[in-house]
Amino acid sequence: MPPSRPSSLASVTAPQGFTAAGGCCGIKKSGRPDLCLIAADRPCSAAAVFTTNQFKGAPVLVGMKHLNDRGYGTAQAIVCNSGNSNVATLAAGGFEHAVQMCAAAAELVGCDPHEVLPASTGVIGRPLPIEKITAGITSLKPDLGRGEQYDIAAAQGIMTTDLVEKATLRTFELDGKPCTIGGIGKGSGMIAPSMATMLIFFTTDAAIAPAVLHTALQQANAASFNRISVDSDTSTSDTVYILASGAAGNALISEPKGASYETFVAALTQACQALAEQIMVDGEGATRTFEVHVKGVGSLLDADKIGRAVTDSPLVKTAIHGCDPNWGRLVMASGKAGVELNPATFTVKIQGTTVFENNTPTVTQAGPLAELSEKMQADRVVIELDAHQGDAQAVWLGCDLSRQYIAINADYTT
Amino acid sequence: MPPSRPSSLASVTAPQGFTAAGGCCGIKKSGRPDLCLIAADRPCSAAAVFTTNQFKGAPVLVGMKHLNDRGYGTAQAIVCNSGNSNVATLAAGGFEHAVQMCAAAAELVGCDPHEVLPASTGVIGRPLPIEKITAGITSLKPDLGRGEQYDIAAAQGIMTTDLVEKATLRTFELDGKPCTIGGIGKGSGMIAPSMATMLIFFTTDAAIAPAVLHTALQQANAASFNRISVDSDTSTSDTVYILASGAAGNALISEPKGASYETFVAALTQACQALAEQIMVDGEGATRTFEVHVKGVGSLLDADKIGRAVTDSPLVKTAIHGCDPNWGRLVMASGKAGVELNPATFTVKIQGTTVFENNTPTVTQAGPLAELSEKMQADRVVIELDAHQGDAQAVWLGCDLSRQYIAINADYTT
Repeated sequence: MPPSRPSSLASVTAPQGFTAAGGCCGIKKSGRPDLCLIAADRPCSAAAVFTTNQFKGAPVLVGMKHLNDRGYGTAQAIVCNSGNSNVATLAAGGFEHAVQMCAAAAELVGCDPHEVLPASTGVIGRPLPIEKITAGITSLKPDLGRGEQYDIAAAQGIMTTDLVEKATLRTFELDGKPCTIGGIGKGSGMIAPSMATMLIFFTTDAAIAPAVLHTALQQANAASFNRISVDSDTSTSDTVYILASGAAGNALISEPKGASYETFVAALTQACQALAEQIMVDGEGATRTFEVHVKGVGSLLDADKIGRAVTDSPLVKTAIHGCDPNWGRLVMASGKAGVELNPATFTVKIQGTTVFENNTPTVTQAGPLAELSEKMQADRVVIELDAHQGDAQAVWLGCDLSRQYIAINADYTT
Repeated sequence: MPPSRPSSLASVTAPQGFTAAGGCCGIKKSGRPDLCLIAADRPCSAAAVFTTNQFKGAPVLVGMKHLNDRGYGTAQAIVCNSGNSNVATLAAGGFEHAVQMCAAAAELVGCDPHEVLPASTGVIGRPLPIEKITAGITSLKPDLGRGEQYDIAAAQGIMTTDLVEKATLRTFELDGKPCTIGGIGKGSGMIAPSMATMLIFFTTDAAIAPAVLHTALQQANAASFNRISVDSDTSTSDTVYILASGAAGNALISEPKGASYETFVAALTQACQALAEQIMVDGEGATRTFEVHVKGVGSLLDADKIGRAVTDSPLVKTAIHGCDPNWGRLVMASGKAGVELNPATFTVKIQGTTVFENNTPTVTQAGPLAELSEKMQADRVVIELDAHQGDAQAVWLGCDLSRQYIAINADYTT
């Protein structure tokens, strides 16, 4: 199924204290939007998680520095361009260019350049057209505002070959005060010669200390963006930023525990999962997605190892594409995950039907197999893998592997 | 390029002391060969390496038992059927069926059933038609012989959807005596609902103690079959067997060191690499293969991590398919391997041309890029990744990812 646009794109300016803008500065030959700015009225608690890839884009390096090389601190704006990822451009001044983007945004917002978090996505290895970008950022001033139209403009400014905008909104209460988390994201897109990049920007009006915000983001990230796999590859630009304005007026969350913290983490996790889901549905060449519920293993680490092995597996992904209830590939992928498993207690369900138990397939006749295959033509396939040897569990999300993925990633002119 | 048949298929009966046969017992509806027997004149030193998958086929479990659960011992025959992998059939008597295959082969060869090493490949999850198979094995007696026609029959008996037979032969000298290693293999094939399986059977007339043979096989395996990736998935049936008759008359190699041992390991490694190469060229949907030379890292472990990450990467595989000199994906895949790397010293060459150094792409103009892309249309693409931070190196072998892979693995009726 082609991804559909979320019914509402209200997102990053829904929390109190934020404005946003999108615009075009001419990086993309198509003339499509290529700039995004999210600005807070005052300095916010800020946190981030970045790609673990050893090769990091210049904006990642600058963002890390602006968050004191520990992933959290204070910031007042996020600035991002699409169309050029500013990766592998250090010799061409890439680091300085990312700094200049921050400076331009800082001047507009009225904050210190160190309080701006930068990101870039798009073609890699080409010098950033920095004059166009800084001029473009400066010209965004009249476009800044609050409301869904501004959220949409911001979400469009970070798209590469995403088919639809990605946005989410979660509301909750802290100390009787209504709080909001809004987020926009972009998923795997391809601009030759480039690679998939995931960018996620959140805002919230909850009051929460920087270090605690970082812990919450890591926790939410582990249960969402770290549990999806389009193609098992890790971009050099992946970034999640969050700004917390505190404008909601709740008592500052100053420790990573307690009821308020748990409420906040739960809302942030849901917001992360909603964007993770949108990214998978818009995965390169994806025609359907599949959930992998790993259950009954000894530790969360083991659950994640199996979840990753199964969602990464090309043989599983092609079976999902072909609507094939192929328990063999699910068993194979689970068994290679580096987790000790007992085949005798391992069970596999597809769309609610048990297909493997007692080390034996349970649906073997043509009729029931065809019926199950038909059920797999759904947009979402649910796979349950239960090792029956412990209490830990995790849910991963994958997408199928189609000819279109090959077409997107092999058939373009360099 | 479609794989071509090796010019000579002389292999497992070239070493002194072995006969082989292939035959049809009716497992495959197509009527194609589905049985293979390799018999030694007398008990041999024997060793094996098996799949590390937690879910193992019944023949793997029996083979492990016959080699004393330590991977080496004494054996006089290898028996294999294709068309049914005897995986996930324990409830249907799969283990006993593998034992019965050994018993039938033992009676024919005149040895103890424990001295037979079994293997099966093909459809999984279906009970083995054991009567057909044991009758078929018994009827192979008049078909056993020495010479290339027997080697070909044996090689054909283990094929599933391999396009060509796979065989290799290496000669060397120990103590002035001519020695030979012969081997046959099969690679990734697909019979719905099934999975890729690699089977390799070697014979040699060198005299070498079982435990030492095992060490040699592990060493050769690490530098060959453990350095290839068609699709990053690990079969539940992968098996490499070797029988050493000692008929060459060299002084028994009784320790894993010394000149004779090194000579033997070198020959066995070459034989493994030759079959590994044939398997990759015949990989599912492969149109070309690529070597990844990882250099200048701190340890062999690190070299292997990078080699695996690059040959597993769908984005690298699709770039190779599209003849795209995409240094970005090579850098990305290297950077996610879990090895600490310094982008400033990392260099990338494709077909001998440096495309990335000083954290910057070096070929950026349309003309040279097109020229390099043309060079990548070769059957073999050579990629060199040098971290310039150590002395360890390893060579991995991958194949490209094409629509045909999707077609093979998604479009079949269950």
